[in-house]
Amino acid sequence: MAKYGHFENDGREFVFTDWLTPRPQLNYMWNARFLSGVNQFGGGEGAYGGRAAAYIDPDGKGRCSVLKNGARYLYIRDEGTGEIWNPGWFPVKNAPDAYECRHGLGYTELTAAKDGVEVTLRAFVGETEPAEIWTVRLTNASTAPRTLKAYFACEFELSGYARYSDAMSYLTGEYDASRSLLVCYNRAQERPHDWFNGFMAASIPASGFETSRKAFVGNYGDLSLPLGVKNGALTGSLAACEPMLGALEHSFTLAPGQTAEYHLLLGAADCMATAQGIADRLFAPGEIERQFAALTAQKSAMIEDTQIETPDEKINCIVNSWLKQQVQLCAEAGRDTGKGFRDQLQDAWAIAAFNPALAREKIYETLTKEYSDGRCPRGWLPLDHHIYSDGPVWIAPTINAYLKETGDYAFLDASVPYLDEGEDTVWEHILTAVRHSSEDTGAHGLVLARDGDWNDSLNLIGVEGKGESVWTSIALYFALHNAAEIARCVRHDAAVEAELLERAERIRSAVDAHGWDGNWYLAAYNDDGDKVGTHTEQEGTIYLNSQTWAVMTGIAQGERLEKCLHAVDTRLMCKCGPMTLSPAYKTYNPRIGRLTGFVPGIWENGTPYCHGGTFKIVADCCVGRGDKAYETMLKILPDSAENPSDYSGCEPYALTNMYFGPENPRAGQTQFAWVTGTAGWMYRAATQYMLGFYPGYGEVRISPCLPSHWKSCKLTRRFRGDTYVLCVENPNGRQSGLSCLLVDGKPVDGD
Amino acid sequence: MAKYGHFENDGREFVFTDWLTPRPQLNYMWNARFLSGVNQFGGGEGAYGGRAAAYIDPDGKGRCSVLKNGARYLYIRDEGTGEIWNPGWFPVKNAPDAYECRHGLGYTELTAAKDGVEVTLRAFVGETEPAEIWTVRLTNASTAPRTLKAYFACEFELSGYARYSDAMSYLTGEYDASRSLLVCYNRAQERPHDWFNGFMAASIPASGFETSRKAFVGNYGDLSLPLGVKNGALTGSLAACEPMLGALEHSFTLAPGQTAEYHLLLGAADCMATAQGIADRLFAPGEIERQFAALTAQKSAMIEDTQIETPDEKINCIVNSWLKQQVQLCAEAGRDTGKGFRDQLQDAWAIAAFNPALAREKIYETLTKEYSDGRCPRGWLPLDHHIYSDGPVWIAPTINAYLKETGDYAFLDASVPYLDEGEDTVWEHILTAVRHSSEDTGAHGLVLARDGDWNDSLNLIGVEGKGESVWTSIALYFALHNAAEIARCVRHDAAVEAELLERAERIRSAVDAHGWDGNWYLAAYNDDGDKVGTHTEQEGTIYLNSQTWAVMTGIAQGERLEKCLHAVDTRLMCKCGPMTLSPAYKTYNPRIGRLTGFVPGIWENGTPYCHGGTFKIVADCCVGRGDKAYETMLKILPDSAENPSDYSGCEPYALTNMYFGPENPRAGQTQFAWVTGTAGWMYRAATQYMLGFYPGYGEVRISPCLPSHWKSCKLTRRFRGDTYVLCVENPNGRQSGLSCLLVDGKPVDGD
Repeated sequence: MAKYGHFENDGREFVFTDWLTPRPQLNYMWNARFLSGVNQFGGGEGAYGGRAAAYIDPDGKGRCSVLKNGARYLYIRDEGTGEIWNPGWFPVKNAPDAYECRHGLGYTELTAAKDGVEVTLRAFVGETEPAEIWTVRLTNASTAPRTLKAYFACEFELSGYARYSDAMSYLTGEYDASRSLLVCYNRAQERPHDWFNGFMAASIPASGFETSRKAFVGNYGDLSLPLGVKNGALTGSLAACEPMLGALEHSFTLAPGQTAEYHLLLGAADCMATAQGIADRLFAPGEIERQFAALTAQKSAMIEDTQIETPDEKINCIVNSWLKQQVQLCAEAGRDTGKGFRDQLQDAWAIAAFNPALAREKIYETLTKEYSDGRCPRGWLPLDHHIYSDGPVWIAPTINAYLKETGDYAFLDASVPYLDEGEDTVWEHILTAVRHSSEDTGAHGLVLARDGDWNDSLNLIGVEGKGESVWTSIALYFALHNAAEIARCVRHDAAVEAELLERAERIRSAVDAHGWDGNWYLAAYNDDGDKVGTHTEQEGTIYLNSQTWAVMTGIAQGERLEKCLHAVDTRLMCKCGPMTLSPAYKTYNPRIGRLTGFVPGIWENGTPYCHGGTFKIVADCCVGRGDKAYETMLKILPDSAENPSDYSGCEPYALTNMYFGPENPRAGQTQFAWVTGTAGWMYRAATQYMLGFYPGYGEVRISPCLPSHWKSCKLTRRFRGDTYVLCVENPNGRQSGLSCLLVDGKPVDGD
Repeated sequence: MAKYGHFENDGREFVFTDWLTPRPQLNYMWNARFLSGVNQFGGGEGAYGGRAAAYIDPDGKGRCSVLKNGARYLYIRDEGTGEIWNPGWFPVKNAPDAYECRHGLGYTELTAAKDGVEVTLRAFVGETEPAEIWTVRLTNASTAPRTLKAYFACEFELSGYARYSDAMSYLTGEYDASRSLLVCYNRAQERPHDWFNGFMAASIPASGFETSRKAFVGNYGDLSLPLGVKNGALTGSLAACEPMLGALEHSFTLAPGQTAEYHLLLGAADCMATAQGIADRLFAPGEIERQFAALTAQKSAMIEDTQIETPDEKINCIVNSWLKQQVQLCAEAGRDTGKGFRDQLQDAWAIAAFNPALAREKIYETLTKEYSDGRCPRGWLPLDHHIYSDGPVWIAPTINAYLKETGDYAFLDASVPYLDEGEDTVWEHILTAVRHSSEDTGAHGLVLARDGDWNDSLNLIGVEGKGESVWTSIALYFALHNAAEIARCVRHDAAVEAELLERAERIRSAVDAHGWDGNWYLAAYNDDGDKVGTHTEQEGTIYLNSQTWAVMTGIAQGERLEKCLHAVDTRLMCKCGPMTLSPAYKTYNPRIGRLTGFVPGIWENGTPYCHGGTFKIVADCCVGRGDKAYETMLKILPDSAENPSDYSGCEPYALTNMYFGPENPRAGQTQFAWVTGTAGWMYRAATQYMLGFYPGYGEVRISPCLPSHWKSCKLTRRFRGDTYVLCVENPNGRQSGLSCLLVDGKPVDGD
């Protein structure tokens, strides 16, 4: 669809054939200690936030943003013609004759040519070292000898913590000529750890270097035509107390047909010796290619673990490759400004299916943030003390899914500390959470909203301790049933099961009695007892989540089910998906929250916020609406007919957290993609709810819910060590309901 | 000296003849509600911090930085030739044929020409409205009709407070076509007041506008060649949730010799109606020229109030015009990140001589920040709770100077609230402060350092409540004598005078007994009882302030006086002035403070920090070292033989707070100028200590201290309603000591 590129290799690569995308198109690469974003220019400009190249402290003491605005570029200077250009066009903007940028899973390879010089740039992050690994190949494809200089330059930021006065006070540069290795230091005392130094190193001797930005770009200059490149000579500056930039120059004379290849590193270190060690290890012969091969092998295994084959090729490409990559990014490295309680659990919920070890690690870490009385903070790193009512309700469903997927029942007996004091088993953590929530109720018997629910910006409905969340109440009902299922199937504890089901029944009664607005479910009662998301309001009349969860959990039945589905279909759908609420708020309401002060059509204020949209897909599947589920999936997935990436700017291979809403002048555009809870839910919506593979404790339930025009599709899935191949034949165009089920070719009853 | 410009009009204007200065050269313009910095490009790039254009809240609720990086530029597009250029060269960098930028006191006028088109740009801030007022004149100096488009564009920042998520969530643009007035809003709830909206308006109808940055510069574009200017057409964008930029297009066809003139406003408003009101008032016929005339008249009065005529023309230019402007800036609008207790008092101390009403206001405001027990915080706006030991010692000298200057003795009886509780007279505030300090002493009887002394970054010597500051002790001795003088001369209270002198004697004894290191005075004892600034240390061996203040206050006598002057002369002088300490620290010492972690040669770590340097000039004058005082003054003043502005980057008309020190790779360069306590002290050093005019309670004491080669100089000075003209004749080249004193032509005894 997008004019600027297309999928190749079964969707494992997205290939840009034009650099002029509506906004930068990012690819992420990371390991446990380093996270990088590279765009279709081959680096720089527009990497979201501090994620362009960030050092991740393994002890959780905070990140260091290594680069400023993601800026790192290769400049080619043709000594014969004086021509200066970048393989990725930006920032010199001297167009190459040929260009192709290939984003793969964890690497990017950019190939360009100009005037008979071919350049290939490949970037990835290796197994353990905190550095980007770049490989540059220069080929003289012309018939005469060519003399070239190549400059690799980056702007260092080295920030990420509170400052005194000016970080400039602590900045210096140093150069190890024997290794062509430069280090730029930020030695501010306030830094939370020592890894606030950036380095650049080359595998072959450099003919010049720079660490001062001003020396490189020139006075009043910028990266679009740096003085050093223009002059073809660097000054060897050692920066001090000034903006820092790393640049290395390499000089080549190439005979016709000759190729030069070398490697560059861009990373973080705690001192010069560490940077030297990293360079020495990675520049050992063959090491970089070995690590690159390991990366591609690992990604192939990830792709092959679970694969869908549907008539919609784009869905196959995204679900089989990129969506897994996206969920892994979220779970492993993507949460930038702290980790969210709900976010970690939802990532784990999805990832349990194809990376259960990581899921277990994330669940464990999150449970250590639960208070001993069952309350849960919004997040940590640093700790956000706000108590959101939804924290406790994510625990049971996530662990229930993990147990079904893995059979790792011993996990329930693992001991986990509480955030404040004491420790207890995973099972007790589950019970503590749901028991707390089901007691933490208000005047209508609904769960108190406290600082908000899933909707972060509904943050003022309950701060006085009286406002209640209808959505949290429904989600608690779901959590109690999940906990009860564990009690029954794993713990074999009928008393606890009965207790939990009784609690669930109580909350269901409260929702039935006080959560219904006549044609849809309310969102909340605020501290004044006023209804939120009610037909008498002109703004925020209806909210999405209460409807989708009432459907998904079975709370909505009969007429109420029909009515609230109708309300969603008629009042909340727009061309990029279902909206969080409608109409958008135009007037700030301090009794509701921050979202009412946002410009209409951004974040939670009347937008197709995709995470909420995936709940709607799941709800559709739960009631057999395969066509509606598919239609919504298309709206949310990037680059569909209604939201082409040429306009939305969303990377065609990654999900965004939000499209601007219809009441915003930028309706349908996006700000960024990749880091969003949407990914995990979309993965489960496709592989579980649509294709219909439901792991259970003693069985696997098969119950597809498909668009009626999908006549045939297939799921290949690893489950508890076996590979299952599920073939769905749907010649009559039904949306759900099995006609017959064959296992190993033999008919079986039920699902 | 500087190759890029020179003074004109008795130094009232600095004229740039080349735009390629080593760093941006700022001029400030302000009123009570708006502060602007304009550089030699006629705006933008490099204005220090958020001061490029800031809205000042009159209730002290915090500033709004209106512009991003100070960016506002006029682009000229020649419709005939397609040529695009800026009168100030930047950011298109298409050189004009002629260029001149004239920084005056509170205004800047830039004149440029290209291909027969002449452009004049004038900027100032008017009397009360929170806006910059720009006047544009376009003249066709060629022989054929010319069609031109002029684009005035600025990047709005509208920040200055803590954020949730992203300020983007609250940004929108609006346009009032009837007034050619655009407003860009930031409606974030966290903003401390409503004036976080920027506006731009034109006095004649615009032919186009833009509020979205992306619409103006184009995708992946920047201000160096904005798409809108390149195309000669703006899109009329209304920005939402994206970087905001204001641009107005005006179209002209000019006959040969014809001139077009119009005005532009760039300011802050709380809503559209306010912006409209500001535009309507300022665009009333003649209003802008009336306000500009009022500005120049006010500045002329300021210049004429006190004037020196010395053989050194540069000193005359700076002291008579620019130094007053700089002190006023500091006192009225210059303190950006909060107001400092000591800073406000030192500004007031100097400004008492030529703007006593402002001095009184600043003293009053500062006294409201004193705690009722005499302790003083570091600053406020927001309140910085750190208790610096030097706060109390600035009160008495400043008020003593104010009283001598004005005779406003009733001020001592004015009632002023304390920061915590209660209120009392100004006189009691003075006494509370010095009594507190003289009791707040440690094991050696010296004043406890608490969170630091004048040296902000000596912040860890006394946090445990044991470290003592030698410098604060000396300064307290001085403060007690100042308070005693008030007691004697104004309060006629012999008992209090005696008490204060007894306290002074006690602190002097402690300094004598424990403050001397053998060849110079110590800086401090830290919490461990270790000496700071002592000959046994390899770094920070000697500190400047203890020496200069011991000399200035008379504590250093006889051999100690000689020794400590010798130590300053031989150990602390470098080519840009005396250093705060030497050698610079290379290793962080958490028992001394932040300064030991700075890169050597920045801030207080071994630099010619000019504020401290001015203390040294005063100390020289106090002991008759006129040549040394002059030599030091030249080192600190910008653009002298040893620190040419062509290298230092310091504006030739403004004092910097610091030159990088000799141990820094950038030795001799500067970061910024204008906002520094250096200004007030330099003003007093020149007009009082060198020219020798000392106001007293019953008399004026005349006691010049001059460089021996100054054979003749003159001071014209307003004092208590009269104008004094002091002519110093020094045919024998003495540095100090009157031979004879004539008053109205008649000899008088004494000084």
